[in-house]
Amino acid sequence: MSLVVVGSVAYDGIQTPYGKADRLLGGSATYISLAASFFTPVKIVAVVGDDFDAADVCLFEKHSIDLTGLERAPGKTFYWAGVYSADLNDRTTLTTDLNVFADFKPKLPEAYRSALYLFLGNIQPTLQAQVRRQMTRAKLVGGDTMNLWIRETPKELAETLREWDVLLINDSEARMLSGEFHLYRAARKILEMGPKTLIIKRGEYGAILFRREGYFITPGFLLEDVYDPTGAGDSFAGGFMGYLAGFEADPNDHAALRRAVIYGSVMGSFCCEQFGVQRLASLTREEIDARYREFQNFTHF
Amino acid sequence: MSLVVVGSVAYDGIQTPYGKADRLLGGSATYISLAASFFTPVKIVAVVGDDFDAADVCLFEKHSIDLTGLERAPGKTFYWAGVYSADLNDRTTLTTDLNVFADFKPKLPEAYRSALYLFLGNIQPTLQAQVRRQMTRAKLVGGDTMNLWIRETPKELAETLREWDVLLINDSEARMLSGEFHLYRAARKILEMGPKTLIIKRGEYGAILFRREGYFITPGFLLEDVYDPTGAGDSFAGGFMGYLAGFEADPNDHAALRRAVIYGSVMGSFCCEQFGVQRLASLTREEIDARYREFQNFTHF
Repeated sequence: MSLVVVGSVAYDGIQTPYGKADRLLGGSATYISLAASFFTPVKIVAVVGDDFDAADVCLFEKHSIDLTGLERAPGKTFYWAGVYSADLNDRTTLTTDLNVFADFKPKLPEAYRSALYLFLGNIQPTLQAQVRRQMTRAKLVGGDTMNLWIRETPKELAETLREWDVLLINDSEARMLSGEFHLYRAARKILEMGPKTLIIKRGEYGAILFRREGYFITPGFLLEDVYDPTGAGDSFAGGFMGYLAGFEADPNDHAALRRAVIYGSVMGSFCCEQFGVQRLASLTREEIDARYREFQNFTHF
Repeated sequence: MSLVVVGSVAYDGIQTPYGKADRLLGGSATYISLAASFFTPVKIVAVVGDDFDAADVCLFEKHSIDLTGLERAPGKTFYWAGVYSADLNDRTTLTTDLNVFADFKPKLPEAYRSALYLFLGNIQPTLQAQVRRQMTRAKLVGGDTMNLWIRETPKELAETLREWDVLLINDSEARMLSGEFHLYRAARKILEMGPKTLIIKRGEYGAILFRREGYFITPGFLLEDVYDPTGAGDSFAGGFMGYLAGFEADPNDHAALRRAVIYGSVMGSFCCEQFGVQRLASLTREEIDARYREFQNFTHF
């Protein structure tokens, strides 16, 4: 089943202890769409400037991503640059040029509106709500947010969240959103805000799925080399939602949600193995399934 | 099968954001022995001073721990005091009074020497080696160490390690011992030093078991409240070794080693729920097995 993905498409300048690259295809919608495309047809909603590269369009097309909703606006594409710490656990933003993204008002093409699966990448909560309202038959809606919106627009975020089935955030965002330090308590509060499923991403340590009836914890994949963690969280979201859409999962199918967390972890781990989207671009479904089986092997007892 | 446990028995002064206590029974051998006692008969080797409390002797006896090897020396029992940070992830040592522990030369009672299972708690590597040599039929030897010995006595540590089947250390110690930041590489180097099994403890994030033929990762148990993490790593060691001794496991039984990691995690998680050894003292085997099943439930997919 088709998955509609809304978010940013950007160019990134990235510096890690392993190298430096200046104009890599990036943005939340990019990583989510590419990761999801291994599981299900994807329809992207985003905006780029007139500097957007034909080779990048080509990469999306190679992954059969529907670009009807990729708006081209006069001006430059969103640009972000950052530098990572030696252990890759922290990053400092050097530049954020919103450019055409500053006036992004996501409009869904007619053909997108009847899709059953929707993932709202991290954009302003009011925009996320507008997209949600344009969908007429949505069966499973997932979304992401960030510290900026939790702090600056808590009311709008709360209203938006109420309409979601799944919220995917990281541990520090979960603590901030709930005002609780312990994740178990944080989760209980967040599940009262609307989403029936909460996924808390913990970076290299894995992820936790919380639902009222129980929880699921997976450790992270143990990578030998992490070259660039940019986009790992979005790749997780793409693997997670892509699997659910491809499987035509019911939003309350707990077993499918657990498998989706593993596919999310698999995609997040691959993402870190090379700079930008390079690893996702070269990946095969066979490699994905082999790593899924590796998760089964190393967690089984 | 009996498990011989060597290490420290101490009094601890502990301050966490949840409270303060001044003279709690502590020390590595204490936590290891109490945790292991739920699975197998334990024989302790340690030294205490003439201030050692009858109530604490009584606690060991209640857990059927053989105290023949608990030496009483003139002077005071080892005393340690420390204060934890707000998130409990760091601690600062306020006092270390070695007292009678300074001259500890572990001597194994005759009846201990033919035991098949031995765990060497964190003491000076040369002393660990001396204990190892006194055992005549040891089938499975595990041990712990710390940053102090890795830095100060690397040669002695390397010699000692060569005789062990299992090394249990935390992630920062594994990095220090191997000189490798990535755990996968660190593990590969450490497995070349002697032990065929390496367990890396990651605090709240769980633990990893490494062997040449494969690895196993478990997430940590998600505690709602952590009151005092003192002794959690030693309780892990006790649950791990206690299970293996009780099951009469072969040192290369990978499946048993995985289950032992879960029992270790279970015991480490219980330890944090109250101050000092309080939770271990009130625990039942039924509670332990219930939490083991909870691990099965929340990791299964």
